[in-house]
Amino acid sequence: MSLLTVGTMAFDSIDTPFGKAEKIVGGACTYISWAASYFTGDINLVSIVGDDFPEDELDQLRNRGVDLTGLEIKVGSKSFYWSGKYHQNMISRDTLVTDLNVLAEFNPILPEKAKKSEFVMLGNITPSLQQKVLEQLDPAVDHFIAMDTMNFWMDLAMEELMHVISQVDALIINDEEARQLSGEFSLVKAAKKIFSFGPKFLIIKRGEHGAFLFHDDKMFFAPGLPLAEVKDPTGAGDTFAGGLMGYLSYLGSPNFENMKRAIIYGSIMASFCVEQFGINNLKNINYNMIQDRLRVFHNLVKFELI
Amino acid sequence: MSLLTVGTMAFDSIDTPFGKAEKIVGGACTYISWAASYFTGDINLVSIVGDDFPEDELDQLRNRGVDLTGLEIKVGSKSFYWSGKYHQNMISRDTLVTDLNVLAEFNPILPEKAKKSEFVMLGNITPSLQQKVLEQLDPAVDHFIAMDTMNFWMDLAMEELMHVISQVDALIINDEEARQLSGEFSLVKAAKKIFSFGPKFLIIKRGEHGAFLFHDDKMFFAPGLPLAEVKDPTGAGDTFAGGLMGYLSYLGSPNFENMKRAIIYGSIMASFCVEQFGINNLKNINYNMIQDRLRVFHNLVKFELI
Repeated sequence: MSLLTVGTMAFDSIDTPFGKAEKIVGGACTYISWAASYFTGDINLVSIVGDDFPEDELDQLRNRGVDLTGLEIKVGSKSFYWSGKYHQNMISRDTLVTDLNVLAEFNPILPEKAKKSEFVMLGNITPSLQQKVLEQLDPAVDHFIAMDTMNFWMDLAMEELMHVISQVDALIINDEEARQLSGEFSLVKAAKKIFSFGPKFLIIKRGEHGAFLFHDDKMFFAPGLPLAEVKDPTGAGDTFAGGLMGYLSYLGSPNFENMKRAIIYGSIMASFCVEQFGINNLKNINYNMIQDRLRVFHNLVKFELI
Repeated sequence: MSLLTVGTMAFDSIDTPFGKAEKIVGGACTYISWAASYFTGDINLVSIVGDDFPEDELDQLRNRGVDLTGLEIKVGSKSFYWSGKYHQNMISRDTLVTDLNVLAEFNPILPEKAKKSEFVMLGNITPSLQQKVLEQLDPAVDHFIAMDTMNFWMDLAMEELMHVISQVDALIINDEEARQLSGEFSLVKAAKKIFSFGPKFLIIKRGEHGAFLFHDDKMFFAPGLPLAEVKDPTGAGDTFAGGLMGYLSYLGSPNFENMKRAIIYGSIMASFCVEQFGINNLKNINYNMIQDRLRVFHNLVKFELI
């Protein structure tokens, strides 16, 4: 089935304890689309870039089955630019530069085909823009909608954010955000509270520590895979969401059992992502590598009851 | 088989965002012994307290099969006292008071029976005291020795610490400590480095995030169980180690497969521990509760490959 991905495309300059990269291609929608492209060849991308964005990068996405009809290329403008430096722990980071550029003018317009996407992944953007996307979806189609967001919007636009949250099937956030949104410290209690806001699935990302899935009174946990090399955590959360939603689009039925596997596939894609800077590693994997890592994940947590 | 537990017994005053407890019974050896007592009825405890330590608490340990012959009760002296306040995240904490009291005079003397314990759990104390324990073990017995330690000793007594580490089978530390000890950020690389120091098993505790087991080129992960109530993380790491070593003492053969299950049992015991202050919850569990939680752990991470 088809997947709609909405969010930023950007240039990133990244400084980690393990290296540096200057002005490489990034952005949530880029990571989401690359990761999802390993599971579905029917992706509709909606984003905005300036005319400085490399045509070659767009071609590579097209070659992966990503329909860029919904990508606005603003002539004479610059793409969104972000620069950050990670701390020694590779988790916390300082933002050095945020140049919104074209992102300040982003007004997502969905092509007709995109409106019919059965699966929708709303990357982390202003809740009002996420709302605009939701309002354009074809009401004749039964959509499965997942969204990402961040504490920034909880502080600045809580009312609009809650309205968007009330309309989605799955919320994908980190543990701090889940705690802030729910006012509960216990993630079990946070999940119950968040279900009362609308979503039926809550996915809590914990970076290198893995990810939780909550649904009804059930829970599931996918560990973070310990890796010999971690060079750049940028985009890992988006890659996780992209792998997850890509795999769900492939399966078609977003029930708890399928969601469990989808979260494992999301974790697999994120584990590839962080091994290199930016989207580099996401371009170089293949089916066998994904299957090999699936078995590593399976063995990592497998134990016999007696 | 029998288990030797060595470490502190103490009074703790604990302040968490979810409550307070004044001068309750604590200490690594207390938590380790209580947790282990659910798996083996043959525990030899070696520790030191003042004559202010409640006789009733000692009787309760005796009733659990803990032999207190190796416990020195120093008349006219006070027990070790620690007081701490947890931050909002329930992970980091400030130590408010540390009164060593009798702990300053701790000179572990192993009773004859304790010297023959097949399994040994060295709680976190001065490496020189851990060394004294190792030197008293009966060389005719094939011991399986696990130890805990902390960054404090890496800063202050690295040489003595490394000597102790070189003699143990399993090292049980947290991720920051593993990184400091090895000089490697990647836990995969840290494990390889630490194996070169002597231990054959490395167990990395990550608090609420779970625990890793490394052995040869194999790894295993036990998640932290999301709980509705977490009141007090104090002693969770010791309880984990106690459950782990208690279960291994019960099984007898410390191979990788058994160690995996032991780490799950350690995690189960730790999950009970944090639900109440101090050792309260550890006194009130039973076999069925442990088995129920074992199934929760099993389902938490279980997924089918296809």
